Amino acid sequence: MTTTTAMLDTNPQPIALDRRKLAATIDALTECAATCTSCADACLGEDMVADLTTCIGRNLTCADVCGTAARVLSRHNGYDATIIAAVLQACIAACRACGDECARHAGMHEHCRLCAESCRACLQACEDLLNTVSA
Amino acid sequence: MTTTTAMLDTNPQPIALDRRKLAATIDALTECAATCTSCADACLGEDMVADLTTCIGRNLTCADVCGTAARVLSRHNGYDATIIAAVLQACIAACRACGDECARHAGMHEHCRLCAESCRACLQACEDLLNTVSA
Amino acid sequence: MTTTTAMLDTNPQPIALDRRKLAATIDALTECAATCTSCADACLGEDMVADLTTCIGRNLTCADVCGTAARVLSRHNGYDATIIAAVLQACIAACRACGDECARHAGMHEHCRLCAESCRACLQACEDLLNTVSA
Amino acid sequence: MTTTTAMLDTNPQPIALDRRKLAATIDALTECAATCTSCADACLGEDMVADLTTCIGRNLTCADVCGTAARVLSRHNGYDATIIAAVLQACIAACRACGDECARHAGMHEHCRLCAESCRACLQACEDLLNTVSA
Repeated sequence: MTTTTAMLDTNPQPIALDRRKLAATIDALTECAATCTSCADACLGEDMVADLTTCIGRNLTCADVCGTAARVLSRHNGYDATIIAAVLQACIAACRACGDECARHAGMHEHCRLCAESCRACLQACEDLLNTVSA
Repeated sequence: MTTTTAMLDTNPQPIALDRRKLAATIDALTECAATCTSCADACLGEDMVADLTTCIGRNLTCADVCGTAARVLSRHNGYDATIIAAVLQACIAACRACGDECARHAGMHEHCRLCAESCRACLQACEDLLNTVSA
Repeated sequence: MTTTTAMLDTNPQPIALDRRKLAATIDALTECAATCTSCADACLGEDMVADLTTCIGRNLTCADVCGTAARVLSRHNGYDATIIAAVLQACIAACRACGDECARHAGMHEHCRLCAESCRACLQACEDLLNTVSA
Repeated sequence: MTTTTAMLDTNPQPIALDRRKLAATIDALTECAATCTSCADACLGEDMVADLTTCIGRNLTCADVCGTAARVLSRHNGYDATIIAAVLQACIAACRACGDECARHAGMHEHCRLCAESCRACLQACEDLLNTVSA
């Protein structure tokens, strides 16, 4: 998503966060949310779906949490550092739980391998940005 | 929403949280999300919209965070206490920031007064439930 | 949700739709979205989950479509009748597909019976409101 | 988002839609939703916010509708052509209304110019995909 930075740069509000890290995190969250939504559906279509219900539940929750975080991080009116830090913590928890579970199925299901990768990348981006919020 | 409890009671998964508090929190989150969405639109339609941009930004964020939390709390497959605690913390932060800002306009705008009330009730429900998650 | 009407009545924008039907539809959409989210999770937790994957997919889609519609219908700035009609049509299609599928499992799973009921009620509310939009 | 095609290709379910057009539409919807969310916040931060309330309302609605459509199109369990067609129609209506309004402010606000472009591209992708659904 190449427009994230352009939209940030044309926003008239002061941006309280590091712009480069903010844009990278929004993009990672958006991709993670999309990948988790797809992984939930792919798991649901597997013959062994009964073994993937924990994975599906975590995919759906990670998609919801990261999708919402991308929207929240894109909003600079009414910015509140406490909200941002808490939302990033929720993403870190959701990405860890989902990424760990997907990693267990990565050898068998390529969609889980890709999703585990998205979750790890997103978790890392959220931690990088969170370090600058707390500072 | 009288169906929240009925849906919880017919879910075959074990429910890790206090059912009464869980249902009360889901309902409070759902109502808060709806009220914040409406308050954002009502503020946007006021003549003095330029004085309400912080309020609108926080309304939109509180609606996103609480709406997502209601979905996450309704999911028991792949339950993870760390995610639940972090999501509730995000709601508490969002409800506090939005409720405080709405309260500043409550004397002038009835929609802000109603929204501040929804935020306070939701914050209280989230704290009550969070106390049982940490336990 | 008793606050829907109060929030509508304190919105300074002109409301293009019948207020009573609009509030009833927003409430029906909100409840349907919540019930479908819960039904998806309940189905995922059943031993016979492999027979419920169509139901889960439709639950998730109906939850997404109806949840978004409740937000869209709560917004009166930038009102556009073509969007409202199309969104209501999408809800009608999603509620019909999900309600029909849930009805097939209603004898076996109480959550599907409750969800089929929510979908039917929501479909009816959307059709009632749509009739006034097209008029 | 380069993972959209990879996730589609690893989904075990039959895909009822043209894969190339489907992936392009999901990516266009995801970008449009993100751009509209950012444009709403940028408009809210402008000194002339009172002249941009229609734009903000349509941005928020277009973001909701397109974000939901990206999720719905990523789901192949419980696929229903009537839902897909109705959801694409809702996106087309939302992108047209939002794109037209943003275009009116494009000379003054670069974020509106970028958003109008995203809306047009998304509208085109949705129409291309819809043509294959109706067929």
